[in-house]
Amino acid sequence: MPRTPARTPDAGRRSERSRRAILDASLALVGEVGYHRLTIEAIAARAGVGKQTIYRWWPSKAAVLLDAFTARTEDPEYAAGLPDTGDLAADLKLVLRATVDEFDDPAFEAPYRALAVAGALDPDLSRQFTERLNEPGLAAYRDRLRSAREAGQIAPGTDLDVAVELLTGPFFARWLSRSGGLTHAFTDALVDTVLAGLRPRDS
Amino acid sequence: MPRTPARTPDAGRRSERSRRAILDASLALVGEVGYHRLTIEAIAARAGVGKQTIYRWWPSKAAVLLDAFTARTEDPEYAAGLPDTGDLAADLKLVLRATVDEFDDPAFEAPYRALAVAGALDPDLSRQFTERLNEPGLAAYRDRLRSAREAGQIAPGTDLDVAVELLTGPFFARWLSRSGGLTHAFTDALVDTVLAGLRPRDS
Repeated sequence: MPRTPARTPDAGRRSERSRRAILDASLALVGEVGYHRLTIEAIAARAGVGKQTIYRWWPSKAAVLLDAFTARTEDPEYAAGLPDTGDLAADLKLVLRATVDEFDDPAFEAPYRALAVAGALDPDLSRQFTERLNEPGLAAYRDRLRSAREAGQIAPGTDLDVAVELLTGPFFARWLSRSGGLTHAFTDALVDTVLAGLRPRDS
Repeated sequence: MPRTPARTPDAGRRSERSRRAILDASLALVGEVGYHRLTIEAIAARAGVGKQTIYRWWPSKAAVLLDAFTARTEDPEYAAGLPDTGDLAADLKLVLRATVDEFDDPAFEAPYRALAVAGALDPDLSRQFTERLNEPGLAAYRDRLRSAREAGQIAPGTDLDVAVELLTGPFFARWLSRSGGLTHAFTDALVDTVLAGLRPRDS
């Protein structure tokens, strides 16, 4: 009998399979029943594991969900940041169009809505989501705008935080309150109007 | 015995007092317990009326809350729309600073957050809130921007819907996700950046 069974290749693969099943189950369930009715028991049942397996790895359902969502940001393609072709408008439009498509997928949209709502009601959860989930995404926008500022494509005095919020806030507001359609035409218009306001004064 | 007791001045005043007490109680309670735990019974108890009084006037708690919030928009000062001094930036900054101050008041903020969250989870409620509560406010912004467009202060091709969402969406996103401070400096920066993007091309 091996002394470190958890480290054998088979056990490692089984652990990773369980971890993945738990994260997937948490996203599917929170989209179905909402954050407040989500339980560790239900996640365990859906994932086909014992609930002690979940408690061994995560202290709470919020922690499970955070890992489920941040698993996406560890994707190498995502972690590479925004594209930088030199054409700022084209790069921003590409990313925001991809975001529109992502929110059009109920498997993403439903759990994300459940989390946004839970965060809106719970300042501590909100802080964790902002730090671990939203902030890395916003930082990628800031980096792209900074590179454009260095290239003289946007005004030197541009407040990058405000610029990023102008690009992302109206999308978030339309999405959460369902006050308008999330379309490529909408995000293209956002990019054009915001960039017009950020142009260097002498252009 | 008068044939139309409800129309005597005293009964009318009592009705109006009850109506006001019910609306006030609904706002206070939804801020305390959230939309989903709010009940007609609790509103009646807090307002000091029988619950049949509430059911006689409103079909649901959502209808009570909608009236409670829209009572504000019937305020003559509010219904007059945005100020129009001819200085678009100053007018928008004034209104957005007042909105910052309004959201700084827990008696307003807590019930409004509860409603925003309830709407985010319920498309039908969301539609009612958008139509009766948000749309009149957004229309006031659009009217002010239209008058600026007619005065040649913003570009003739300006999409007024997108412009309004640029002014209000980042505020909503910061507020609901608590991702940044709601300050006068923030809303001033929003106005300056958005208006820079809306200036006529030849100025």
